[in-house]
This record gives sequence, structure tokens and C-alpha cells, in this order.
Amino acid sequence: MSENCFQILAREGKARRGRIATAHGLVNTPAFMPVGTAGTVKAMLPESVAATGAEILLGNTYHLMLRPGAERVAALGGLHEFMNWPGPILTDSGGFQVMSLSELRKIGEEGVEFRSHLDGAKHLLTPERSIEIQDRLDADIAMCFDECTPFPATPEQAAQSMRLSMRWAARSRTAFRRRPGYLLFGIMQGGIHEDLRKESADALAGIGFDGYAIGGLAIGEGQQEMFRILDFAPDLLPAGRPRYLMGVGRPEDIVGAVQRGIDMFDCVMPTRSGRTGLAFTRFGELNMRNARHAEDILPIDPRCACPACRGYSRGYIHHLVKSREILGSMLLTWHNLHYYQELMAGLRGAIEAGGLAEFVAGFGTERAQASDRLKPTRLET
Amino acid sequence: MSENCFQILAREGKARRGRIATAHGLVNTPAFMPVGTAGTVKAMLPESVAATGAEILLGNTYHLMLRPGAERVAALGGLHEFMNWPGPILTDSGGFQVMSLSELRKIGEEGVEFRSHLDGAKHLLTPERSIEIQDRLDADIAMCFDECTPFPATPEQAAQSMRLSMRWAARSRTAFRRRPGYLLFGIMQGGIHEDLRKESADALAGIGFDGYAIGGLAIGEGQQEMFRILDFAPDLLPAGRPRYLMGVGRPEDIVGAVQRGIDMFDCVMPTRSGRTGLAFTRFGELNMRNARHAEDILPIDPRCACPACRGYSRGYIHHLVKSREILGSMLLTWHNLHYYQELMAGLRGAIEAGGLAEFVAGFGTERAQASDRLKPTRLET
Repeated sequence: MSENCFQILAREGKARRGRIATAHGLVNTPAFMPVGTAGTVKAMLPESVAATGAEILLGNTYHLMLRPGAERVAALGGLHEFMNWPGPILTDSGGFQVMSLSELRKIGEEGVEFRSHLDGAKHLLTPERSIEIQDRLDADIAMCFDECTPFPATPEQAAQSMRLSMRWAARSRTAFRRRPGYLLFGIMQGGIHEDLRKESADALAGIGFDGYAIGGLAIGEGQQEMFRILDFAPDLLPAGRPRYLMGVGRPEDIVGAVQRGIDMFDCVMPTRSGRTGLAFTRFGELNMRNARHAEDILPIDPRCACPACRGYSRGYIHHLVKSREILGSMLLTWHNLHYYQELMAGLRGAIEAGGLAEFVAGFGTERAQASDRLKPTRLET
Repeated sequence: MSENCFQILAREGKARRGRIATAHGLVNTPAFMPVGTAGTVKAMLPESVAATGAEILLGNTYHLMLRPGAERVAALGGLHEFMNWPGPILTDSGGFQVMSLSELRKIGEEGVEFRSHLDGAKHLLTPERSIEIQDRLDADIAMCFDECTPFPATPEQAAQSMRLSMRWAARSRTAFRRRPGYLLFGIMQGGIHEDLRKESADALAGIGFDGYAIGGLAIGEGQQEMFRILDFAPDLLPAGRPRYLMGVGRPEDIVGAVQRGIDMFDCVMPTRSGRTGLAFTRFGELNMRNARHAEDILPIDPRCACPACRGYSRGYIHHLVKSREILGSMLLTWHNLHYYQELMAGLRGAIEAGGLAEFVAGFGTERAQASDRLKPTRLET
């Protein structure tokens, strides 16, 4: 991993404004990656995802290996061609979801044996197989196969789990086929323990990766504890490489993590919440199922330029959500992804201009000061 | 109903190429109206519906009166504003769906008493209330409240039901608030009986409407019997007014009905079938759930210009349908509506050019002659 794919264009405090070069294009950071679990960002055309400003998607190895299968995706031209997304794609390793979704898991030194949640078929996922699948999918950024240490865990459990992940990281690195513009990221584990995080970071740096993820967070420890770890964990990683906080998060989590030196994020929140009727806005989250929206002629956010806010009243969106209409999922997903990407663009612009502190202050006060007309009620959270 | 909203631009045999003027714009006929049941053409943005070439939508009075309610739609600016569709809208009267969807119906001279299928609440739908609801929705074309005579029915049942609908048609006409560009259509009933169809047509012409629908078909009698009735029924109606065949149908039904003098159609087939994995094409219907599509790199129809065929393989669409992904419904609905609108544009162009007979012959032989590569298997129907 000699050549650096990552360029830091500006800094403010620990925050970085950067750019990652991949085989399928550039990614401006801090970046939020919408999740396209099974080869589709649910309820969105890919050109609509691009229109929100997203430059890179995340695909799930676990889902794609089970259906339609990595070899089938490869036969249909790779994941970009398959899902009609010409831009960069990062795939996870399957390690997280094999533990959370599959059945009858057996974890060992070799890897994880499990049964598919779809049809019960037996599979073995190892570092080598995970990297092979990600290669067949043609991921621009592949992730090391790891075990996401559960929370809570004893220090002994966290250490044992982290060390297994580090051995798997070395095997992942060996299995990875190096090609220009195709990157491999290591994943730091170690739970909530600074010494284990340090040991993990050193192990990964010793192996050498194109970028480094922080795993094992946003799994129940809470924002305060996560921020405590992010106060030291990013600094343990090589300074010149991109840092990716996996599975995070809410807008306020992202803002706090960018301030602590994180460059990349992914989360199902904007898409999944959109499908259940939740709208993210600059003045907080609105639950569009709430009856108080039923006759409201305002859009979700009068200052938002997304298609949902340009064309539709809250009353209409409320109707769609209550009627379980697909268009409700489509419009709210679009709005939420638009909001997330606007937030990332705002963070990037603020770091470039040296105005991140003001941006963060404004982010907080806009929520607090929203007029009663726009403010979410306490019921809505 | 003095001024005629309908202009016939060309004829070939019984077929007509026309144009209807409404308060929200022109409708070129023969026209197919996508169904927007509950204020949305399911799985489609309205601008995407317009991009397929659709000029007019159908809204369902029964669904909208129950949720969100006609008064609420009116408070949110009327149905056009509510659903962000600036073009013409036709609403049905609720008569058909109150009989097929509601519970504990009681039909009498006054109207139909029923319980909502959503919450069991009691409602009374009368000709006067149906017209009032359609007025509140701001429908460009309102339909008379009628009873769709069931099939099969004895001649006595068909006559009794038709005569009730004719009395309701007169009450609908009286209740209708006349405004420029807002049209009211009568609905011919009479089942499969020529004498009853004639009696119904004469009754409607005596009342006087802006257009005339043929009701009570496509409810189980079969295409052969429907075409037998369409061989005489349209001729019974005033020649200079638009004729609308309600709830029809498959592409081959539409082609045959246009040849027999029908100007307007609506059907849930392209949208509902799209959501269950069926693709309409010039060479027949393809069931995208079929495993033979799983590794097919061809689009649904290589000669189709819709977004689904421009960007995606059959293999990918198969994956989406099997995975129950919303994008599968979105792409197949778009493709099917595109196919239907291309068919209508082809019919209009053929009548203008005096080439309808050749067009219809080509429509049949294209299906028969499609290459094995493209042809649907017998399994797929």
C-alpha cells in the first residue's frame, strides 16, 4: 500500500477536508455513503442518489453473496454495471452482518460458518473468501474481514476479539489483489478500551492499508461514550490516510465525529427512517405519521431544495405514509439523503473556509431556535 | 352540456383520433389513463408519469373519500396540488369500488350505505355526495354515480340495475356544478344485452353529458364477449362525444377497442402488474420472477427507451423482484406505463396517417415473430 489515494486539502482543528481517488472516481471528504444493501439504495433510482450529492455508495457483502451471489454479479458486469451506479462503491466485509443476521453461526480461527437467513443454506465466510467476494463485486474500496466486538464486552473478550480481527486483517491484506484505484481498508477494534484501540491501530499500521476504519462503535454504547473514544482513537491511526467511522450515524453524531478527525461515514438511518416516515431536517426530526401534519400545507422544510420539499405538502406526505404508499418511502428517502449530503457539503465548505466552529454552533442553534411552526414536538422523537 | 369539449381530428373506420379540452389541459385520444388510486400512481413520481407521455390520470373517489377525505384534499389545494399533478384528472364515482371493496353494503334508491374497509366507519354514498366529492377533489372529468351490473346477471337483474344507474345519472347531472373545462361523463350499463345497452344509451343522451363511458365490461365476460358488445355499443352513443371504456385493459384489449371506436381507457394492469414483476413488451408479457432471467444481460426490451430498459439488465430486475426491492416496482411500473403510452401514441399516429390496419397487423405479428431470445415462455403468462 505504497501510493496514497488520499489528499488532505484543508484542516481545521482535528477536522480534515480531503479527497480519495478510486478506480471509479473521486470522493470528497468528509463523505457520507448511502447504504445500497442488496444492490439498490432502497426506494431510489441511482441517478436520484447521485442528484443528492452522494459520490460513493456502500454495498453489503453478506446480502450480495447470498442473493444474487458474487459470481452472478460478476457475470452481469460487476456491482457498478449491475446496479447502474458508475461511481465509487465501498463494500463491507460481511463480518458485521453475518453476526447480526445469519443463523447458527460458528466462529473460529478460520472464519465464520453460518446458515443463510434467506434459505438456511450453509456458508463459510473467511478473510480470503470475503476479499474474493468483494473483488468479484468490483468494489473500489474493500474492507478487511473482522469481528465486530459486541457491546458490552469484558476487557478480555474485547482483547481476544480484537486480536482475532487483527490476524484476519493480515490474511485479508494477503488475499487482496492490488490494482490501481482499488483500495483496502483495515478496521480498528478494541471496544471502549484505549489500550486495546492502540494495540489494534499499531497492528493495522504494521500491516499497512490504504485507509482505516473504526469499528465496534454505534452499537449501543451511546453518543457520549462514542465521542469519548473518538477523542483519542482517530489520533492512533496513520495521519495521512482516510478514516472511516462505520455505521454512524445521526446528523449530530456525524458533526461531532468530523470535529474529531473522521473522514467517512455510512448509515442506514436516512434511508431506513425515510421508509418508516421520519424526516431529518435542520430543525430536528419530524415523524410524518404524526396527525398534526395531516392538514399542513408547508413542505417538510420550506428551505430545502429536494424534490420532496419542492413539490409536496406535509399533509400529502403524511397521507402517503399513513397509506403505506411507495411514493412516501421514495420522497422521504430522497429528502433524508439530500439533507445528509447537504450537511456533508456544509461541513466540507466550513473546513475549507476555516469556519467549522461557527458551522457547528449554527447546527446546534438552528435546532434550538426553530419556530414553533417548524419545530418537532417531543412526541415525534 | 352545450359546448363540446371534444374535437375529432382524424378517423379510420370506427377509430377516432381526437382531443379533449379540460380545465387543466388537453388530452389527446385515444388516451390511456394511469390509475392514481389514493392520490399517487403507485411507485412513481408524477413527473415520471408525465415523462411516459401520460396526459391524464384517474383518481379513485372511494379511496380518497375514506383517506384522507375529500374535504382534506380540498383544504390542501385540491387533488392536482395535493399530488403534484398539474394536468387533467378524471375521478371515478366510487360506485364500482364501493361494491367491490367496502363491507356490509346496503344498496337502495337513495344510494349505497357501506362500512369502510379501513376502519369500519359507516358512510352513505349517493349520486349527490359522489358529485360533491369529485367537485371537492377538483376533478376535470367527473363520472356519474352508477352501479356496475355484476357479471353474470339475468336480463331482469341487468335491466333493473341499469335503470337505477340511469336515475342516478339524472341526479348526478343535476348535482353537477358546471364550470368551464370541468366535464361530466355518463356511464352506459346494460350488461351483455343489446336492447338494454340501447335503452341506457338513449337515457344518457336524453340527459346530456360531455362524454360517455361504457361500464360493466372487463369484469369476467372475456375478451370475445367484450368485443362482441363493443361491435355495437359505441355506435349507440352520441358520435361527437368522447367514449371511455372503463377498467380496460390488456394491450390487445385496448387495440381492439380503439378499432371499435373507443377514445379513453384506464386500468391498474401496467402499475399493479409492475409491482408483481410482470413486464409488458411488444413481444408479449415477461414474468421477471422467472429464473431464466437471472443471468440475462439484455434489458427487458432492447428497443425500449424507458429508464428501466436504458439502465438495467433483466438479471438485475429479476434480482430486485426476487428481493422484493422497491426499486423493482419503480422500474417495472415505469417500463409498463411507458409501454402503454407508446402503444397509445402509436395508435394515434396510425389513425392520423390512415394506417391503423397495418399498425394492428404489426402489433399482432411482432408478438408472434419475436426471436426466441425475446419471446416469453408459456410459463410466463
